[in-house]
Amino acid sequence: MASADDVSGLAASPGPAAAPRWPAPAGADVPVVGMVGGGQLAQMTSQAATGLGIGFHVLAAAAADSAAQVTAGAVIGDYRSGADLRAFAAACDVLTFDHEHVPGDLLASLEQAGAVLRPGPAALRFAQDKLAMRERLTGLGVQCPPYAAVSSLSEVTAFAGQHGWPVVLKAVSGGYDGRGVWICGTPAEAAAVLSHGIRLLAEAHVAFRRELAVLVARSPAGQAAVYPVVQTVQRDGICHEVIAPAPGLHEDMATEAERLGITIAAELGVTGMLAVELFETDDGLLVNELAMRPHNSGHWTIEGAGTSQFEQHLRAVLNLPLGTPRMTARSAVMVNVLGGPDPGIYSRLVHVMAADPAVKVHLYGKQVRPGRKVGHVTVLGEDTGVLASRARRAARYLSTGED
Amino acid sequence: MASADDVSGLAASPGPAAAPRWPAPAGADVPVVGMVGGGQLAQMTSQAATGLGIGFHVLAAAAADSAAQVTAGAVIGDYRSGADLRAFAAACDVLTFDHEHVPGDLLASLEQAGAVLRPGPAALRFAQDKLAMRERLTGLGVQCPPYAAVSSLSEVTAFAGQHGWPVVLKAVSGGYDGRGVWICGTPAEAAAVLSHGIRLLAEAHVAFRRELAVLVARSPAGQAAVYPVVQTVQRDGICHEVIAPAPGLHEDMATEAERLGITIAAELGVTGMLAVELFETDDGLLVNELAMRPHNSGHWTIEGAGTSQFEQHLRAVLNLPLGTPRMTARSAVMVNVLGGPDPGIYSRLVHVMAADPAVKVHLYGKQVRPGRKVGHVTVLGEDTGVLASRARRAARYLSTGED
Repeated sequence: MASADDVSGLAASPGPAAAPRWPAPAGADVPVVGMVGGGQLAQMTSQAATGLGIGFHVLAAAAADSAAQVTAGAVIGDYRSGADLRAFAAACDVLTFDHEHVPGDLLASLEQAGAVLRPGPAALRFAQDKLAMRERLTGLGVQCPPYAAVSSLSEVTAFAGQHGWPVVLKAVSGGYDGRGVWICGTPAEAAAVLSHGIRLLAEAHVAFRRELAVLVARSPAGQAAVYPVVQTVQRDGICHEVIAPAPGLHEDMATEAERLGITIAAELGVTGMLAVELFETDDGLLVNELAMRPHNSGHWTIEGAGTSQFEQHLRAVLNLPLGTPRMTARSAVMVNVLGGPDPGIYSRLVHVMAADPAVKVHLYGKQVRPGRKVGHVTVLGEDTGVLASRARRAARYLSTGED
Repeated sequence: MASADDVSGLAASPGPAAAPRWPAPAGADVPVVGMVGGGQLAQMTSQAATGLGIGFHVLAAAAADSAAQVTAGAVIGDYRSGADLRAFAAACDVLTFDHEHVPGDLLASLEQAGAVLRPGPAALRFAQDKLAMRERLTGLGVQCPPYAAVSSLSEVTAFAGQHGWPVVLKAVSGGYDGRGVWICGTPAEAAAVLSHGIRLLAEAHVAFRRELAVLVARSPAGQAAVYPVVQTVQRDGICHEVIAPAPGLHEDMATEAERLGITIAAELGVTGMLAVELFETDDGLLVNELAMRPHNSGHWTIEGAGTSQFEQHLRAVLNLPLGTPRMTARSAVMVNVLGGPDPGIYSRLVHVMAADPAVKVHLYGKQVRPGRKVGHVTVLGEDTGVLASRARRAARYLSTGED
């Protein structure tokens, strides 16, 4: 394949020393959205930004990050550095995020300095601090799994005495994609987690029927748009597949989930996308997690909804009217492509495309590592069972080469 | 709005002096497509390339070009310079084009030097030279308007004596978007065109019922995929709106148009997208123009087809299996947004989005000039008449602020 070393001698647009790496937007009135984080969420948001014709900048940790590979003028910097954040924010009209890891004190000082953060620090806190989230939601009367802050084995065993084993221990902050969540069946397992010395939350292990998610966009003007409630399947804390709408979900429960999403978005003052992960139990819906950004449970919206979650996030953070969240087909199934033992995904793409000309494959340009999310596939149509088997087959083949 | 001057002092990825501006693709087996031309076609192709996770480079004339604004590592260079083209080609596995203006001798020498050009020079010649195209199509038995090469007023008047006035004079090469096409009602008007001293073709002015277009993708393996035949409305040689599928088109004529597209793509050895512009007349279909690239008559496919013409072009030039061209809705209407007297399109976007949350707006980031294509809108649904009035209203409002 062509090497990037071959380009020497070719005229190129001026680098950052001579001029900023991004051209000024064409229209004087076109705003610039800056996204902190350069992963696949930022990458897919960049596609939507291009369609809207707005300015879009990315602050990525490395040039190899998914979004940094494809967007003009990606800035390489550290989201934990106040100086990097300030310089990035100065070039943007609105700052938004593809992860929850920017420290709260930096967010607060950015806002104090006049940067427009969407979502703002007051809302983001509830996506960053699981204890604050649980307390806030409980205060709103939203049902959550039983929980308690724990800092010692005796507190964990006391919690287990009340709610039984296993106990779910969660890092109060910093966890995502299952990292930072431990299902402990014994005091010894809990002790091992406690030994990390991080702030922990204990939660009852919920016997759920299945997991659901509801995605809501909310703009600073207060407009909200909610997508159909989806069913998600997680394995080892990683999202594996999403079915939209959630099959066989009772209308009342769908309405209740949508109401929950809209209420939480409004009460917490979220701007942009909010994902609410839910447990469906015999006793109703419990809120598991919140994310205030485009979310894996919404990737199906790229083809499956009138407005993708990425375009919707941009519209929301720019305080533009929201687009229709209506589905474009009766059903959509999204399955993540995880890295397998062999990195040669592209060589397998040809067979997937030949076998199913209607499967939509999204690859993130990531270095393949076993178990890493490197892409996803979406299939739209009528029969959810058929769609799921087509999507699973395509994702499995891309991952492993096994049919 | 934020100024790009605010970014000084921020760490940035290394510029071209230190390293190439584009990172190496993540997977060793991921190919790099290079597109010559940085307009909106390249911009929309870049969105599709991001989705496929392939490498994508653009050779743009200026940093303000639509595609150069948004793609990583856009190269600024001259498509008429052999050195620029060679250096660009060296960094790409496949070279393709968002316009037909690269001189044929440069294409031939690139190919001779080992570059993979799709479409290749032998095919592209028929999109670059209208006389060669007419002769080739006529040789294939494809119906075209009566034509003749003309170089003097006496030849034009002789042609008019046979086919009547007005006579359509066309530049044999270099014309696009209506530039290079003159409808001459009198010998004096023809004389004014002849005075430009360019190679000209005379064509009979066809009394067509309407204009149609058929889009076909063809891969080097010979696979073809054809989109539903559309109706196009041109004004002053510029595409104004496209309705898919063409309303009320007789099934036999639709089949004939599809057959024409597939035959021409195969016989001319096209790889990538081929657009065939057609006149529907009382005596059947006549071929008006050919383009070998994504085409304005296919913008509706972004939302309206299972595979957009931009993804399809990439799949075709990479010799990947083609995606389904099936429509995602019963009908789609696309209307171009032309620059109006006031450049402030973004300030009008809010009203369009509020008025019609299901309209899909695409803005190209171009400096607004009266009459210039600066974006398009697409509406999908059931009732073509309703869709057309919604799309026209949105486009008109974005252009002029008039409802």
